Amino acid sequence: MSWERFQRYYLPIERLGCALDVSRVDFPDDYLMSMASKMEKAFQEMEALERGAIANPDENRRVGHYWLRAPERAPSPDIRQAIKTQLTHIHDFSCKVHSGQIQGAKGPFEQVLLIGIGGSALGPQFIHHAFDAPLNDKLRFAFFDNTDPEGMDCVWAQLDEKLGQTLVLVISKSGTTPETRNGMLEAEAAYTRKGLSLGAHAVAVTGEGSQLDCYASDNRWLARFPMWDWIGGRTSVFATVGLLPAALQGIDIEALLAGARQMDEVTRLPDMRQNPAALIALMWYYLTDGRGTKDMVVLPYKDRLEYFSRYLQQLVMESLGKEQDRDGKVVHQGITVYGNKGSTDQHAYVQQLREGIPNFFVTFIEVLKDRQGPSLEVEPETTSGDCLHGFFLGTREALYEKGRPSITLTLREITAHSVGGLIALFERAVGLYASLINVNAYHQPGVEAGKQAAADVLTLQRRILQWLQARPGTTFTLEEIAQSLDFQKERLFKILEHLSANPEKQIRKISDTSLGWCRYGYK
Amino acid sequence: MSWERFQRYYLPIERLGCALDVSRVDFPDDYLMSMASKMEKAFQEMEALERGAIANPDENRRVGHYWLRAPERAPSPDIRQAIKTQLTHIHDFSCKVHSGQIQGAKGPFEQVLLIGIGGSALGPQFIHHAFDAPLNDKLRFAFFDNTDPEGMDCVWAQLDEKLGQTLVLVISKSGTTPETRNGMLEAEAAYTRKGLSLGAHAVAVTGEGSQLDCYASDNRWLARFPMWDWIGGRTSVFATVGLLPAALQGIDIEALLAGARQMDEVTRLPDMRQNPAALIALMWYYLTDGRGTKDMVVLPYKDRLEYFSRYLQQLVMESLGKEQDRDGKVVHQGITVYGNKGSTDQHAYVQQLREGIPNFFVTFIEVLKDRQGPSLEVEPETTSGDCLHGFFLGTREALYEKGRPSITLTLREITAHSVGGLIALFERAVGLYASLINVNAYHQPGVEAGKQAAADVLTLQRRILQWLQARPGTTFTLEEIAQSLDFQKERLFKILEHLSANPEKQIRKISDTSLGWCRYGYK
Repeated sequence: MSWERFQRYYLPIERLGCALDVSRVDFPDDYLMSMASKMEKAFQEMEALERGAIANPDENRRVGHYWLRAPERAPSPDIRQAIKTQLTHIHDFSCKVHSGQIQGAKGPFEQVLLIGIGGSALGPQFIHHAFDAPLNDKLRFAFFDNTDPEGMDCVWAQLDEKLGQTLVLVISKSGTTPETRNGMLEAEAAYTRKGLSLGAHAVAVTGEGSQLDCYASDNRWLARFPMWDWIGGRTSVFATVGLLPAALQGIDIEALLAGARQMDEVTRLPDMRQNPAALIALMWYYLTDGRGTKDMVVLPYKDRLEYFSRYLQQLVMESLGKEQDRDGKVVHQGITVYGNKGSTDQHAYVQQLREGIPNFFVTFIEVLKDRQGPSLEVEPETTSGDCLHGFFLGTREALYEKGRPSITLTLREITAHSVGGLIALFERAVGLYASLINVNAYHQPGVEAGKQAAADVLTLQRRILQWLQARPGTTFTLEEIAQSLDFQKERLFKILEHLSANPEKQIRKISDTSLGWCRYGYK
Repeated sequence: MSWERFQRYYLPIERLGCALDVSRVDFPDDYLMSMASKMEKAFQEMEALERGAIANPDENRRVGHYWLRAPERAPSPDIRQAIKTQLTHIHDFSCKVHSGQIQGAKGPFEQVLLIGIGGSALGPQFIHHAFDAPLNDKLRFAFFDNTDPEGMDCVWAQLDEKLGQTLVLVISKSGTTPETRNGMLEAEAAYTRKGLSLGAHAVAVTGEGSQLDCYASDNRWLARFPMWDWIGGRTSVFATVGLLPAALQGIDIEALLAGARQMDEVTRLPDMRQNPAALIALMWYYLTDGRGTKDMVVLPYKDRLEYFSRYLQQLVMESLGKEQDRDGKVVHQGITVYGNKGSTDQHAYVQQLREGIPNFFVTFIEVLKDRQGPSLEVEPETTSGDCLHGFFLGTREALYEKGRPSITLTLREITAHSVGGLIALFERAVGLYASLINVNAYHQPGVEAGKQAAADVLTLQRRILQWLQARPGTTFTLEEIAQSLDFQKERLFKILEHLSANPEKQIRKISDTSLGWCRYGYK
């Protein structure tokens, strides 16, 4: 890397304590200019979105996550007021929890169980882990982010002793997310088993009037916080979804918001050379031919940021992974994101990154400040943090030598302010890149098919169970059941295999070497 | 999916309680036969490896992970005896820890801190999480798997109260891994701060005579366990690396080994239609054109298996990601692996998988048994586990409809036996696939460059510090320092930025809008 090129493409942003370095992407010097008109259009679209245009025409929705950290920019007084009221509500509620004014059946709250999935979990989990400080957190956190019974049992085993001091946050925009609903019902059962009421320990974050909202109201939950239809799940981390858990943990949510607001100011600049979000979007375009031809490996050299790649997986892949562009042309877009943390991941797959298939670029995240307080010297003049930094520089160099490009984002330190900025930076990079490739970043039409297919499976399962229960004590071949119920045999087989492995269903199986001759029966 | 094709390519393995389904990879029926001679060669190479051939000619080493679960197959009485002795040693040691016969300064051990990285952490972490049961584990586990000071501080905050009852396992084959050494030194300092001796709480797992081995011996650690040069890091989970922590947690390591041994027996069969490891290798070859042209998304529908994809990342990417094949031809091989768990990941990126860039195939892992004990009904006749299973089937179908292929591995339940089998299955699939594509799966020549570059950075850092310390109270431009020390300016800048962000180094910076005019000085 020549010092001249580095200086040309290194963009420090002093007020945010960060810097972006795109010099290790080998674009020619005239590339940026060649993209000027496309980028100009992207800036205009972003401006319209921020002013309140319908950015998600599929669902006829505005897209307002930028207003959350700058309510004065919201397109109506109602929205402005709603954002401010919500923030006050979050502050009030978390203060009352911290002071013990709101408490559980067994005393002041000490733990939080957050029940959510996708956009209702990934942001809160990322923020939680970025600031997790077991000795200082005002509340300890656990998560249900799936509908796996054993996963929930493992969480219960940690919380069980103190359910009466555990606050349960149930987060679902639609209020009907099955995984979240199941988690809530399992939580309710656990509280009931202890002679406690879930409602006296629970808070709902959901759309007004949703099923969950009504349930929480009917059962007199501690509080309900609204989710607005102009906030998408994957950009809801600065709405109550992310702010309420952060405030409960004791994180400075004003600093989070301020970091995001300041990053928005920087990334609104229409000068692409001075705009880090625009530069990231342009690099993605260059590196992946505007078609996602390379994967993005995300390597933060900081354990606290280990969950960032999961957060980005959703933000990037759900926003960009689209079959059609905005004109209805089939494009099969997207950018694949994966990674955990450096230097740990070096020991897992830098071998392939350096020598193997060159199907990726790396986004390094460097954090300059190593820790609070002084460090032990592990060698003369050398700390563990120096080693971590050395591994980052060494790996980046070793990859660059082999023609593996990388983007580096430097943060001075991990603070609520810098993390707020980090999130806002990638939110806008994704929005701008979506404009460059002409896809709608704000819908997710591809997720319904799987949900519908899952619902169909459960309907089939009920029909199978009823059919077998009506014929107790007798076993049937797959052929027989399939004919009688007019089902596709593979699906029938898969459902019966699952049923027969769970004793409570009382479905027994008589195996046969030929699948068609396996027999299943009730009792 | 036709029932005929499904039956043809569904391979149940009753004795292991598992099944492999490759029917949703759309290979033509004559594909398997067309690969017969290549596969035959792969079987022969595997047989030679198991008999003790030099399978890693770079390092002139044998590759013996298969012997660990079948010592009678080891090529020499010494190795056979070593494996058996080690296993006895592991049993004895963990029994003594559990009974309190071996204990810490403050009483019986309650916690373990495992310090390792790469192959010395990923296997233990996977096994730990697969069986984590907070109420039943004989010891609670924490990990240092990096050299990040803040990451270590966060772990200390959890362990700190009970250091005198915390057993420290330091695992490094070479005994010189910097991240592990740093973790050990930070641990030693923490024990010393508490007036405790690390040695009285520590165990080394390392090559005999290594630096770590000598250190542990000199400081009278509780125990030392050898690592053999015929075991690679990424296949060391059935050596002491994985078995000792598993035994300490209370996992049935005999069942782990038995599962692996039985899977080895099944996957040694030279009939590729009956051999699940061969089928997996053949699918990888078909799906990725034998060149890694598609990524492997790993989606276990079971929280306990969430760490499996990280384990596989190393096993697959470090084994296969090679620049040259075994004949020295430049091939840039590899298969990219990522994923966390279903149905959680559906909410993050199934949008892209179904609609976006078709650059992947999925490996689904289905677990039939939902949980220990009965489940609540969340709908009539429907449990949380039914929903999880429904999401798996629904997502798989939604992807298949769109031409996105998948492999499904079904496990009856998560037990030590089935997890042992799971690991052994993929170990052998990787080995066989490496033969198919003619790469050496057992070396990692690409990892040295980054390590060397990192070491160079630390040497430079020391020289910079010494130079500045010799000139206290004065600041210098990058230009001046670079000229005097004859350093590359970008690297100098990166090191100085890191130094100046960490107050203990006493390097101050005077910023300038031009990087070349930034000034740095000592005190």
